Amino acid sequence: MVTAESKVSLTGIKPTGEPHLGNYIGAIKPALELADGAESIYFIADYHALTSVRDPHLLARWTRSVAATWLAAGLDPERTTFYRQSDVPEIFELHWLLSCFAAKGLMNRAHAYKAARDRNREAGVEDLDKGVNMGLYNYPVLMSADILTMGTDLVPVGKDQLQHVEYAADIAGAFNALYGDSFKLKLPKAVVPKEDSGRTLPGTDGRKMSKSYGNTIPLFAPEAELRKLVRRIPTDSTPVEEPKDPAASHVFQILQHFASSEETAAVRARLEAGGMGWGDLKNTLFTTLDDHLRPMRERYDALMAPGSELDELLALGASKARRRARPVLQQARKAIGIG
Amino acid sequence: MVTAESKVSLTGIKPTGEPHLGNYIGAIKPALELADGAESIYFIADYHALTSVRDPHLLARWTRSVAATWLAAGLDPERTTFYRQSDVPEIFELHWLLSCFAAKGLMNRAHAYKAARDRNREAGVEDLDKGVNMGLYNYPVLMSADILTMGTDLVPVGKDQLQHVEYAADIAGAFNALYGDSFKLKLPKAVVPKEDSGRTLPGTDGRKMSKSYGNTIPLFAPEAELRKLVRRIPTDSTPVEEPKDPAASHVFQILQHFASSEETAAVRARLEAGGMGWGDLKNTLFTTLDDHLRPMRERYDALMAPGSELDELLALGASKARRRARPVLQQARKAIGIG
Repeated sequence: MVTAESKVSLTGIKPTGEPHLGNYIGAIKPALELADGAESIYFIADYHALTSVRDPHLLARWTRSVAATWLAAGLDPERTTFYRQSDVPEIFELHWLLSCFAAKGLMNRAHAYKAARDRNREAGVEDLDKGVNMGLYNYPVLMSADILTMGTDLVPVGKDQLQHVEYAADIAGAFNALYGDSFKLKLPKAVVPKEDSGRTLPGTDGRKMSKSYGNTIPLFAPEAELRKLVRRIPTDSTPVEEPKDPAASHVFQILQHFASSEETAAVRARLEAGGMGWGDLKNTLFTTLDDHLRPMRERYDALMAPGSELDELLALGASKARRRARPVLQQARKAIGIG
Repeated sequence: MVTAESKVSLTGIKPTGEPHLGNYIGAIKPALELADGAESIYFIADYHALTSVRDPHLLARWTRSVAATWLAAGLDPERTTFYRQSDVPEIFELHWLLSCFAAKGLMNRAHAYKAARDRNREAGVEDLDKGVNMGLYNYPVLMSADILTMGTDLVPVGKDQLQHVEYAADIAGAFNALYGDSFKLKLPKAVVPKEDSGRTLPGTDGRKMSKSYGNTIPLFAPEAELRKLVRRIPTDSTPVEEPKDPAASHVFQILQHFASSEETAAVRARLEAGGMGWGDLKNTLFTTLDDHLRPMRERYDALMAPGSELDELLALGASKARRRARPVLQQARKAIGIG
């Protein structure tokens, strides 16, 4: 049924490391929840990662790992479209086509490029483009191709990614102004989730969990490692018997994302009443995490095993994605005079 | 037989107008002569033309026209590989891949981009990137993909295009430095023809024949138009009976490219002896051109007719080109970790 609800949404996933609990709560879970209302498309931006990942074994591993993670986390490859960017050649042809309608000025103002220039400036490097490759500089055009090739209506993004969606709409608008009589690219809209901060987990040092802080708990850490990492989360020295403020506890902050609301309420009550120590709370967190993650971890390990159905699922996704991409590219080609 | 002679050479042809006599003598004929010594590849850079040609009918027409021209001029689609850039999607994927190894600094120094900035500067435009699209800016990377996808050894170019071949070698070198243990892109070399100036024809106003001067003689002008345009070539007022300097005559300069050496020598002798008037010389030029061009014009008209074998020949070329491109792309993908 085509209703206002069944708009096409697109989520890009960059494979640049092993997923951790923070990714799961902050990105994977909310993105998967979208699949309920819209026709959802997810892709692994492996050719985007190439702008920075130069180790072929890591790129290959992270691509498989991120695919297995999302499938293990509940992504339904039948109901959604889930593919690797590199499996859809139409995107790269459209990337060139769109580049002819993308003003260079837009790219000069792109956040990632400006950040690279700022780093050079701060380091006292005279040539601000030093170390900048054309993949980084072109990336907003590739992202536009990712979005427009799929006929995307909605792109759920963090605030820092808003610009990419605006660029895609700008480039599509430039194309439509010239060729709109024969074919119009669909203009995408960004959707910025409301409660960004509620989705942030503390890491094993209490700061925001992030690869760059080295304080992550890997999503699929084996049981023993998971237990060890949970123990490492800092707590204060309040004695067991004293009342504690759940909101101020890093351990509780993580717990509430994984425990049911009843369990959360029960633990909150025990902490506030006094008599529940941090060790006890950490044991509860470990058990809750392990219960929640064990089935996902098993599915993940099965998908990561050589000869698993992962390749088949990605091939299915590629074929669905190309069925979408082909008519868009064909019509765009026809419009510009390349039959 | 693979010898030093059978290197792969690549020639790109930009479809940006109807071909004229100057193109034929300056570019088409010398490029076709190359087909004798090397494994020759020719392609129509229709996606390159998109950076400036925004009329779909013109782009479609010029692409067909340039294809028909080269075939009519003697390009052998069986012995060579002759295709439209837009028929080889591998080029566009490799374009992205290579962009990740192309330093932005190279593009800042590219001639066409610098010329666009100079035009803005001279016009007093503050934003030097105004009107510059990413197709123009990225073009050297696409040209690198054109060259490297085909495993090219030699690229015959004018001096103004040397830079593109150097960029292709530079980008391939950067790729090879990172991934050369698993796959090396072939480094291309530019071949600059020796006698550039001898290949230049005067136009109907005596200046160099060029679309931008509006002084061209279309290669496939109908007989009556050809006669009219030849009459328009300026001559001096030397009377019929007086001796004339053939080298100083625009008409003779054109004639010697189309007449046999015996005919050229005979006409030269008559001009130097006196007694041959400019009208007579123009009639000789017209007859020589018409004799030379008539069979080509007939072949051209036949190829341009709807339902001709042109599409078939281009499809044959595309399939030969993709057979070359696929293993290069596959090996490059494997090397970077995108299997």
